[in-house]
Amino acid sequence: MNTLLLDSDDVDDNARMSAVVDAVEEAFGSFERGDCQMPAKSYIDLPQYNGDFRSMPAYLDTGEWDAAGLKWVNVHPDNPEKHDLPTVLGTMIYSDPVTAAPLAIMDGTALTMKRTGAAAAVATDYLAVEDATSMGIVGAGVQSYTQLEAISEIRSIEEVVVADKDDERTQQFIDAFDDQFDVRAGSISEAGHCDVVSTVTPVEEPIVGPEDVTEHTHINAMGADAEGKQELDDDLLLDATVVIDDHEQCTHSGEINVPYHEGILSDADIHAEIGELVVGDEPARTDDTGVTVFDSTGLAIQDVAAAHVVYEHALENDNGSPFGLIGADGV
Amino acid sequence: MNTLLLDSDDVDDNARMSAVVDAVEEAFGSFERGDCQMPAKSYIDLPQYNGDFRSMPAYLDTGEWDAAGLKWVNVHPDNPEKHDLPTVLGTMIYSDPVTAAPLAIMDGTALTMKRTGAAAAVATDYLAVEDATSMGIVGAGVQSYTQLEAISEIRSIEEVVVADKDDERTQQFIDAFDDQFDVRAGSISEAGHCDVVSTVTPVEEPIVGPEDVTEHTHINAMGADAEGKQELDDDLLLDATVVIDDHEQCTHSGEINVPYHEGILSDADIHAEIGELVVGDEPARTDDTGVTVFDSTGLAIQDVAAAHVVYEHALENDNGSPFGLIGADGV
Repeated sequence: MNTLLLDSDDVDDNARMSAVVDAVEEAFGSFERGDCQMPAKSYIDLPQYNGDFRSMPAYLDTGEWDAAGLKWVNVHPDNPEKHDLPTVLGTMIYSDPVTAAPLAIMDGTALTMKRTGAAAAVATDYLAVEDATSMGIVGAGVQSYTQLEAISEIRSIEEVVVADKDDERTQQFIDAFDDQFDVRAGSISEAGHCDVVSTVTPVEEPIVGPEDVTEHTHINAMGADAEGKQELDDDLLLDATVVIDDHEQCTHSGEINVPYHEGILSDADIHAEIGELVVGDEPARTDDTGVTVFDSTGLAIQDVAAAHVVYEHALENDNGSPFGLIGADGV
Repeated sequence: MNTLLLDSDDVDDNARMSAVVDAVEEAFGSFERGDCQMPAKSYIDLPQYNGDFRSMPAYLDTGEWDAAGLKWVNVHPDNPEKHDLPTVLGTMIYSDPVTAAPLAIMDGTALTMKRTGAAAAVATDYLAVEDATSMGIVGAGVQSYTQLEAISEIRSIEEVVVADKDDERTQQFIDAFDDQFDVRAGSISEAGHCDVVSTVTPVEEPIVGPEDVTEHTHINAMGADAEGKQELDDDLLLDATVVIDDHEQCTHSGEINVPYHEGILSDADIHAEIGELVVGDEPARTDDTGVTVFDSTGLAIQDVAAAHVVYEHALENDNGSPFGLIGADGV
């Protein structure tokens, strides 16, 4: 049998955002219904290289389709400066749950960006005002592009304000999108006064306060991915309707991890998991919801759901490179 | 950067057994010294397909070299009959610990057989009589071939007795090796009366008793890989010098798991972990050791060590197919 190899361009071409958003929404639903398996991420810490590896296996069954796979990913912050490589490199093995055959091996880096944008879009769909037309981006790094790409699939975004202290990064973002949107550079507070905001920074001290947002702003807090990281002020979090992706991950390493461990924010301050909104167990935005925050840490089922979309589209389009990896022509 | 793709033939060609045995021995040593990281295997159970997936990440540092990687592997017993595929299919991602770049992706099925044979060879080297010349094989399935291949690297095996109730499997094994050894079919007891025996069956009720071995036989018990499986009689285990690969895995799913949970066999009946023999903390065979048993469950560091050998040899030999999976030419 052949395994389909899909490089970063193949993933980019075949991860059609509207389909990825749908698949990630279905994944959140399967999570809430208990129709998935997602063992805790395994970590390998390598302080000698200032890096770590993470193993993220998962299976999900949406009722319409099921899928299994594993992402092997890392965080090596010295990579850009010392090795001319990205901080995060992912490899995804997408497997047939029926036989475990490796259907595809794909670049997990592009996949991660797509599925992360898609998660923000799903949350935005349930939590942002229906007539949202403006979007703020706080932090114009590699993960910021799919935020706008995905969210503009589910809201008619016209105006975009991007805030980043690095002018070159800001300009690159503007150049990438100014043919599609009215994009301009602005302060964090200007970005925060949009209908929808995504914060995509690695900061450890909060940079967005209650005064930086409107009364109805929906914030996708995407940046915090480790203990001690936090982008939003405690006051902002406490006043907002907070939706998380997964209780264990969010309280351990998500946007709420610091105030949660300090006892400032408790379970009573968490409105719901995103899956509860998807399956209808908890309400989405109503007229008096106010500011909303989605704390996204990233679930392995998002990767598998996105890989499902990529693989199916690649097959349809005859993309990718077939390779006889396992060499199993019969037993 | 390119990732080297290595199919099952490439793995077979480059997993030179003497080098794999050395690397697995070094891996056991690093395990004992605490110079490795090996999170517990993560399982995804899919009873609807009568199968499961296992994620096996690891890092090891032997002092001479270090290596990281992950094997994604499964057990789907219906595969041969229903899907014309092997029960076990593995995919290995071999990564640079310094940057996390995926150096190679290789067939994990061939790799598993090699590293499993190598583990038996390491144990045999420490536990079999020095002048062993005969080897018994109980169970002539796919995992049996590398038992003989590896063990004949460290002892001068001349005579081989293979016991399997399936005549076709037995004959295939004989045909594969009769140009190198004096190989014949025999009963379990005839196989057990060799100097070294490897049991490689999926049985749940013991099939080898104390009367089936000599006073000095070394047994590699390779078959038990799940709760409830056992190849050797309790009496045989209790009388033997028992060496395990990992306490948690062996007591949970290895050869000793059943009598251990029934309280028949306790920690006092376990001589050592194989790593303790490798680093010299516990004695190997002496003149009055008697029957020895190695309970092998298979460690993720064995896969990473074997992958290290395959990758290095493939590079030297210019084997494999380079593929730009992650498409990272700079940041």
